[in-house]
Amino acid sequence: MNAESKESKEKEKKEKDDLDQNPAQRLRIRDLGLAIGHHRPGRFNAITDVRGVKVGHSTIVKGHGELIPTKGPVRTGVTAIFPYENNIYWDRVVGGAFVLNGAGELAGITQVSEWGLIETPIILTNTLSVGTCSNAVVQYMTEKNPDIGQKHDVIIPLVGECDDSWLNDIAGQHVQAEHVYEAIENARPGPVVEGNVGGGTGMITCDFKAGIGTSSRKLHQKFGGHTVGVLVMSNFGEMKDLRIDGIPVGKVLAPRYEHFRKRNNTFGSIIAVVATDAPLHSHQLDRLAKRAALGIGKIGSYAAHGSGEIVLAFSTANRVPRETRKMVYKMKVILDQRMDPLYQAVVETTEEAIVNSMCMAMDMEGINGNFAPALPLKTLKKMITNHKKYYESESCF
Amino acid sequence: MNAESKESKEKEKKEKDDLDQNPAQRLRIRDLGLAIGHHRPGRFNAITDVRGVKVGHSTIVKGHGELIPTKGPVRTGVTAIFPYENNIYWDRVVGGAFVLNGAGELAGITQVSEWGLIETPIILTNTLSVGTCSNAVVQYMTEKNPDIGQKHDVIIPLVGECDDSWLNDIAGQHVQAEHVYEAIENARPGPVVEGNVGGGTGMITCDFKAGIGTSSRKLHQKFGGHTVGVLVMSNFGEMKDLRIDGIPVGKVLAPRYEHFRKRNNTFGSIIAVVATDAPLHSHQLDRLAKRAALGIGKIGSYAAHGSGEIVLAFSTANRVPRETRKMVYKMKVILDQRMDPLYQAVVETTEEAIVNSMCMAMDMEGINGNFAPALPLKTLKKMITNHKKYYESESCF
Amino acid sequence: MNAESKESKEKEKKEKDDLDQNPAQRLRIRDLGLAIGHHRPGRFNAITDVRGVKVGHSTIVKGHGELIPTKGPVRTGVTAIFPYENNIYWDRVVGGAFVLNGAGELAGITQVSEWGLIETPIILTNTLSVGTCSNAVVQYMTEKNPDIGQKHDVIIPLVGECDDSWLNDIAGQHVQAEHVYEAIENARPGPVVEGNVGGGTGMITCDFKAGIGTSSRKLHQKFGGHTVGVLVMSNFGEMKDLRIDGIPVGKVLAPRYEHFRKRNNTFGSIIAVVATDAPLHSHQLDRLAKRAALGIGKIGSYAAHGSGEIVLAFSTANRVPRETRKMVYKMKVILDQRMDPLYQAVVETTEEAIVNSMCMAMDMEGINGNFAPALPLKTLKKMITNHKKYYESESCF
Amino acid sequence: MNAESKESKEKEKKEKDDLDQNPAQRLRIRDLGLAIGHHRPGRFNAITDVRGVKVGHSTIVKGHGELIPTKGPVRTGVTAIFPYENNIYWDRVVGGAFVLNGAGELAGITQVSEWGLIETPIILTNTLSVGTCSNAVVQYMTEKNPDIGQKHDVIIPLVGECDDSWLNDIAGQHVQAEHVYEAIENARPGPVVEGNVGGGTGMITCDFKAGIGTSSRKLHQKFGGHTVGVLVMSNFGEMKDLRIDGIPVGKVLAPRYEHFRKRNNTFGSIIAVVATDAPLHSHQLDRLAKRAALGIGKIGSYAAHGSGEIVLAFSTANRVPRETRKMVYKMKVILDQRMDPLYQAVVETTEEAIVNSMCMAMDMEGINGNFAPALPLKTLKKMITNHKKYYESESCF
Repeated sequence: MNAESKESKEKEKKEKDDLDQNPAQRLRIRDLGLAIGHHRPGRFNAITDVRGVKVGHSTIVKGHGELIPTKGPVRTGVTAIFPYENNIYWDRVVGGAFVLNGAGELAGITQVSEWGLIETPIILTNTLSVGTCSNAVVQYMTEKNPDIGQKHDVIIPLVGECDDSWLNDIAGQHVQAEHVYEAIENARPGPVVEGNVGGGTGMITCDFKAGIGTSSRKLHQKFGGHTVGVLVMSNFGEMKDLRIDGIPVGKVLAPRYEHFRKRNNTFGSIIAVVATDAPLHSHQLDRLAKRAALGIGKIGSYAAHGSGEIVLAFSTANRVPRETRKMVYKMKVILDQRMDPLYQAVVETTEEAIVNSMCMAMDMEGINGNFAPALPLKTLKKMITNHKKYYESESCF
Repeated sequence: MNAESKESKEKEKKEKDDLDQNPAQRLRIRDLGLAIGHHRPGRFNAITDVRGVKVGHSTIVKGHGELIPTKGPVRTGVTAIFPYENNIYWDRVVGGAFVLNGAGELAGITQVSEWGLIETPIILTNTLSVGTCSNAVVQYMTEKNPDIGQKHDVIIPLVGECDDSWLNDIAGQHVQAEHVYEAIENARPGPVVEGNVGGGTGMITCDFKAGIGTSSRKLHQKFGGHTVGVLVMSNFGEMKDLRIDGIPVGKVLAPRYEHFRKRNNTFGSIIAVVATDAPLHSHQLDRLAKRAALGIGKIGSYAAHGSGEIVLAFSTANRVPRETRKMVYKMKVILDQRMDPLYQAVVETTEEAIVNSMCMAMDMEGINGNFAPALPLKTLKKMITNHKKYYESESCF
Repeated sequence: MNAESKESKEKEKKEKDDLDQNPAQRLRIRDLGLAIGHHRPGRFNAITDVRGVKVGHSTIVKGHGELIPTKGPVRTGVTAIFPYENNIYWDRVVGGAFVLNGAGELAGITQVSEWGLIETPIILTNTLSVGTCSNAVVQYMTEKNPDIGQKHDVIIPLVGECDDSWLNDIAGQHVQAEHVYEAIENARPGPVVEGNVGGGTGMITCDFKAGIGTSSRKLHQKFGGHTVGVLVMSNFGEMKDLRIDGIPVGKVLAPRYEHFRKRNNTFGSIIAVVATDAPLHSHQLDRLAKRAALGIGKIGSYAAHGSGEIVLAFSTANRVPRETRKMVYKMKVILDQRMDPLYQAVVETTEEAIVNSMCMAMDMEGINGNFAPALPLKTLKKMITNHKKYYESESCF
Repeated sequence: MNAESKESKEKEKKEKDDLDQNPAQRLRIRDLGLAIGHHRPGRFNAITDVRGVKVGHSTIVKGHGELIPTKGPVRTGVTAIFPYENNIYWDRVVGGAFVLNGAGELAGITQVSEWGLIETPIILTNTLSVGTCSNAVVQYMTEKNPDIGQKHDVIIPLVGECDDSWLNDIAGQHVQAEHVYEAIENARPGPVVEGNVGGGTGMITCDFKAGIGTSSRKLHQKFGGHTVGVLVMSNFGEMKDLRIDGIPVGKVLAPRYEHFRKRNNTFGSIIAVVATDAPLHSHQLDRLAKRAALGIGKIGSYAAHGSGEIVLAFSTANRVPRETRKMVYKMKVILDQRMDPLYQAVVETTEEAIVNSMCMAMDMEGINGNFAPALPLKTLKKMITNHKKYYESESCF
């Protein structure tokens, strides 16, 4: 029996074991019984728990079989995040960033790091569609704000990318301006669709299908009562390294998947977007963004050479008007020494958002029959239940 | 007499004073008799003196009069720089960067800073055309290298921008993929066209028309004999601050131009590209790029809040193959303590490139009658001649 | 029963449970049966597995009871690391660094980041003794190399610190030049003494006594066969967050220690020193250093506001002579895309070094009766044994 | 006539030409008739124009003739800057930093960059005395605030250095704790002594004697009315590159000094401290500090490999209390787009402070007869007068 037929057998067996490949049966990690970290999630356990934040997707899935460049198959899309309900061009939010490994692109990051301001929606897509998305955001913004580039400053759109070329005809550049508009128009508060959607449609994490994931924390009042939310487009890592809340899930599952063809592990990346209503200035947001890297590491990333791991952060608490007669304004700022609960929240929310991106994604076959299996939730649930039982019992020591 | 008619009078008078507004009469600063710095220029006094470097432009000038958004007038374009004569995707050069003020964009800079590699041509254009250019480079590169995104890695194009909206219908996004292709196809070694061309078509420096400028130094053999070249797209500053080799040119000329309408000085930016054949690793190129900032400062920049001042640097001495069986290679590297002549060369070459971008640019009228006057070369030549005479005589002290 | 007497009871009970508080009975984590990560350790599982690296300590423990400032009790010391067996002033090694959270000091780091060179021994001590140590290294170096500051350049010593003030009379500045000399003279290759020694004497990690720890990896020949070693002075974190290879050790043990007075968790820091014989240039060492942060995160750090988490890295493969007639030299360099095994090695070695710093430390009582309990190895060993058994069985899912 | 006797002759002649080598006859550049830049200085044209800032020196000059290591001659000292009149440990000011070239040390900079706070005085001294000064500040601070390291956090002193080894027995480490105390106790508001004093005692700039210099700007009310002050310890550059407000002073004077032995130009450094009462947060102060680099460049620096060019900045407008019950406070902040006058002020103040450090320094002979001549003020005054006359006349063009 050759490797390929072994893979087929495994897929079959897998389907018997885990009959949960339909969207209705996908569950977020918390619904599987695992609460990561010390703090409580917000209402939707999503980046949209930060008031004013809106998320929308445009998902492009077309064709099957062999790759015919520019024809497909297509497994990609666009995710749009609005940091704030008002017109973000006029009412900017404070921003910051951190690059764990810069083998990737978040177009516009230089200006965020310099000015500490976010003045456009944030777009997530595949690597070779950054230009198209940037362009479409320029069009969208100039339509909404016709003075851009005349009476008022030009803008530099924020567009993050990961490489979905293992499943998607990436060089075909199937993302069009209309998809960017669609993602923007779909953007809304409340629950966020996760998994194989938007920019995350063709993404993979630790050899399992992944994509978009999100999570949030609402800190206790004694820590200020602020909300922190993270949304990731997750696309990195190797199965053997996967840990969920420390549980060696990857190591346990790896033998089942050893006959699966996997993409070269040097591919991959993650873009994380951190939102908060805590009043932070840009330097504090840089520091906050840095902590997301620790969450990425806990899942199993060693920040591989080829993995672009970039974090953007923003705070909605202070808005910076484009036009004002005032020179000096009063900014609410948290004392630095009170930021530790926010740091903790970012670490655990990033971890949970990545896990959610896997839990909510389903099996996907892309170009050339390349197949990314969904995380087997039944098995995972059993692992979690047993792990908790084991560590709550005396039998652990 | 109102301000506008004064301006008209001034323009007229100016034309009489300086009958050098046609391209044939524009001269580079060295041809006006001024040699900036201690080291000698290379053959063409251009970035192309670094063997293998090629430069091409696509210039878009259309229409006159009032701005009709999306119709024009158009004063913009694209400049393409190839760092190396081979296929840059397969034979990458070593790169580095420095951001003096990040109020701008050089898409792809994050990866250059992480990997220290340049693997695409470098494109310069206006702020709102970065997306289009990025996209076009993706198309160009995937046509030339069909394995991109399949057998081989994706790419992230390098696209730098300045804001030409005082003369150009920037929101009209008049740069198309064809212009990027044209600039790429025009790229060649040898003399570089300067002034109102390519990405620099609509740019302004210290209230004078500017655009693309370049300069180079060929170091003496005792300093290693290496070549350093700089190309700038220059678009920053205020007239009163303009100094050329220390001469207070701006202060002297300012009274003549006081009735001219000028753009808001908070606009502006400069992208500088530094090339060398000295064998430098990426960290050394970061340091080299930093020195370009000092050249920008000597012209009169204080790195204004809104001015994106970004420097990219590359060395052609070591090329890093995409594919190799070897794990360890031998890299030629200059001892750090021998880099000072290179640093000096970058400072003076940057200064001279900016001045050349002004000397070679001609008067330009753009949208809404906005007018950027050329640097008056006859007057400048007299200033230089007299200044030299003065400082060579005993009368200076 | 008040909190204090409860603590006493607990201490007593603890002693019965874990009769392994004498040095002879302390074991490294690998000797407790746990192998962290994918790669194999070097001969001594220590930073000294990188040929030429030497480590020495000077430990200062004096007095008991109430703090009488400048009198004691004293629980501190000095650790010295020599990156290379030759005279490091003449034969410099290539260096790099990363700051995860800069709430601390590694004096000299600015020059390492600029020059990418290490030219002095590396000293670790308490926060308020950085000046004394810096001074003593200057004396030591000028004695050995009398031309320093005359015919030859001055030097800037590398001195890292953590805050041991919960156990030590830190403001008493008990470290003297003689201790620095002692640590330097004690420096040797081979096994490294860990735990309550040298600069780590008074340090605490996740509320357990910690200090100096080390670990190494010798990569498989197919990955280049290079060695990576890490030495940490570890002093951060809270018990509830402590994980060892993902095992929730802190959460399991926390109830036993809840009546122990603990230091304010905002104190703390970690200095990690990464050594390798892989041929890396300085920018690559910066990237390598960054990966140590992920190992720190896996133990349970969220890089608290007050925790200075700083990483220094060096490579012994290329040595940079102070004097040379040559301008250009040939440097061996690993291709960046082959660095992933080195990155993995740093993550897992950092994790293991921190754990070793705890495993090898013993109970310590310092000023004012402040008490830091040793990690209970008997219990930990049981936890590890059972955890492995559990995850190797079918009962985990 | 050999070079040495030529130098003697030149010295003699020089003395005849410029009878202004006594302190009473030294004048600041503005008193020589040159006003650098666009904005007006504050009352004392000194860093102390920022209310609350105090400066003190301790100057150590001993012995003559040949260097006998540890005996002398000694030409060094300590300068202390207090950012604020209150106890800086309790009432911290906001800080930031920029490293133009990190071939030097400003101990404590890592924490300033992380926390954006300054909580100790700032000390300037020679390279090999950083440890002693750091230590002395610890002693001073713990005497004043006995809870340091116990109830309250430890501190990390800020100590900047340049290399004075061409004139001073640097390896003799002649700076003692008492000198640090003396500088601290001498610290006061009002006029600042410049030239061969304090940390600047043995420093040289562009081959002329230099040392401590300062300058300030009080912005016009329409720009916010804030004050910016800079103090430098200046020790870099080569005569041929020296420009003062663009005037090629070095080139003109160089022939007179060609027989003087000069130190190796790769030595050298500059530490600049920027103070302001404008309300800036730490990220804005980082940006402000960066502009000082442009001022350094205008004097003639190309940021030589061996030249440590480091800038520290602080704002006294917001003070951050060590202890507070509040979590969120209101911080006054200038809108970023209103910062340009502050940027201009920093560029021109840095330039003027460096020039003042030369104008106010006198001839100094140090070890082994090494001689650094004072800037010849009579000649300089003539140059300035004639230059102004020339450029105000029509003869310039």
